[in-house]
Amino acid sequence: MVGGSRSTITGEELELVEDALRRAVASKVSVLSKASEHIILSGGKRLRPRLVLLSHKASGGKDISRVVPLAAAVELLHTASLIHDDISDQSDLRRGQATVNAQWGDSLALLTGDFMFIRLLGLIAAFDSRVIRVLADSCLALVEGETLEMLSLGDTGMDEQTYLRIVSQKTASLFSACAELGAVLARGSEPHVAALKEYGLNLGMAFQIRDDTLDLVGQRDELGKPVGSDLGQGKMSLAILFALRKSERASELLLSRDAAQAIQLLRDIGALEYAVLKANEYSERAKKVLSVLPASEAKAELSKLADFVVARVH
Amino acid sequence: MVGGSRSTITGEELELVEDALRRAVASKVSVLSKASEHIILSGGKRLRPRLVLLSHKASGGKDISRVVPLAAAVELLHTASLIHDDISDQSDLRRGQATVNAQWGDSLALLTGDFMFIRLLGLIAAFDSRVIRVLADSCLALVEGETLEMLSLGDTGMDEQTYLRIVSQKTASLFSACAELGAVLARGSEPHVAALKEYGLNLGMAFQIRDDTLDLVGQRDELGKPVGSDLGQGKMSLAILFALRKSERASELLLSRDAAQAIQLLRDIGALEYAVLKANEYSERAKKVLSVLPASEAKAELSKLADFVVARVH
Repeated sequence: MVGGSRSTITGEELELVEDALRRAVASKVSVLSKASEHIILSGGKRLRPRLVLLSHKASGGKDISRVVPLAAAVELLHTASLIHDDISDQSDLRRGQATVNAQWGDSLALLTGDFMFIRLLGLIAAFDSRVIRVLADSCLALVEGETLEMLSLGDTGMDEQTYLRIVSQKTASLFSACAELGAVLARGSEPHVAALKEYGLNLGMAFQIRDDTLDLVGQRDELGKPVGSDLGQGKMSLAILFALRKSERASELLLSRDAAQAIQLLRDIGALEYAVLKANEYSERAKKVLSVLPASEAKAELSKLADFVVARVH
Repeated sequence: MVGGSRSTITGEELELVEDALRRAVASKVSVLSKASEHIILSGGKRLRPRLVLLSHKASGGKDISRVVPLAAAVELLHTASLIHDDISDQSDLRRGQATVNAQWGDSLALLTGDFMFIRLLGLIAAFDSRVIRVLADSCLALVEGETLEMLSLGDTGMDEQTYLRIVSQKTASLFSACAELGAVLARGSEPHVAALKEYGLNLGMAFQIRDDTLDLVGQRDELGKPVGSDLGQGKMSLAILFALRKSERASELLLSRDAAQAIQLLRDIGALEYAVLKANEYSERAKKVLSVLPASEAKAELSKLADFVVARVH
């Protein structure tokens, strides 16, 4: 569905976002542009910009140009956080190609991430304080969520609520902000804005739970990075927390860092199935809150997007 | 002078900035607050916030509360960049205490820097687009300048113009923005805004050239970090570039990384004197451009600030 030719977002509209992104990372310091373009043009799904645009249309917005800088801003923010994540995780591979740190070294990768954060400011300067505050809050949640995740690496005593709170902060809050901002800029009614915000939050939860599951069951070629890399870092996920509750062998196997055996166990005891079920629940909730919106092509596509995030294989 | 009791900036006014800073780094994720407070409360000179406040007063601004969030924002930005610098430089010591990376590790330091960048957004949300654009431009210059500096480590073929351009970007542009923003928010006339902007730029140049010199001639106790640490990293400075032009032994000595001998050479051939002279020139230029402003206590203090930055010993 994403990138499909029948989308209510036209190719021209997406091209406006791409243009805004390319302009945002232009710099007289060519290595900053090159490193930024390296990751920005590496085939990201542009889910967050799409969400801004779709939410805008589903809220009756007609003038997409107004919302394009924000669509670019959220993608910049997301990409900056990926660059810094890859430094911390010492990852070499993302989307099937070298990470910025692998190609340019940690120090330049650090500055490239800072560069992208900072270019946000230029993109949002023209927006009013409500818009900037929504973005500021979701940025804060993102950094706090990533910090909590880092602090809990290898914490096999984590409860499911804690995991869900971390996912909500590090991923779902930005999805929620994207949907909210698209609606706010279309001057959507407050109930519609609230519904889209709620939709975005549930979509983000479903997306991240699926993401965590793909780390365990995906194919290296499709993922663009090694299978089980989260597992190797001690990142908790719904499947792993389920296994830790159900199986005495789980903790032993996870500590042994034998990814293949650990993944087999997660399959055998139904842990993967449990995570899929939970992701689907969030996806269904996302679709359900859309009901308050009037029928539109964009609304139908938001609904399909909720199906896509749990069905995707990369 | 800085922190002196006769300043036109009252202790209460500075306390407002401190409050804003403490509020900005408050987080439910306590390690982010702790790491932020560790560096923020480590005895920085608050030059940039003071510059915002003084420029505001020198431009006729009466209501300091309006400008306090910006004064806090520029200090946050500066501090975030220090945290990330210390990761890249693998520095253990700053202002006489452990760096954030030394105390909490690189990954948490990286996130703490991001956290501070992001808290900027909340502080500036209420300002108009002109203010945000000035800040955005100086942030960009800062990151670009730091990148250029990093790329030129050990570049003994650098010319003086290139060094000055890097200093202008990585340091002076933020000083310039501080002075400009204070004036803009006081609704200063455009010639006054332009003069203060120019003052800030020259002040920043003088400050950084002095800073580079202190790395060579300062006392460890006063600097709060080892003497010659820039030298050890291959950072170029006016004194070093002078020495490379004047002495054939210079390049050899600098490569040998024998800090004591290198510093002795810089003294002997007048390289340090040359750098002091240049810093004084910028300081004088800063004072000169103030002449268009009407007489005021704040203007007199800006003039004294230009003397201070080149006379300081830490």
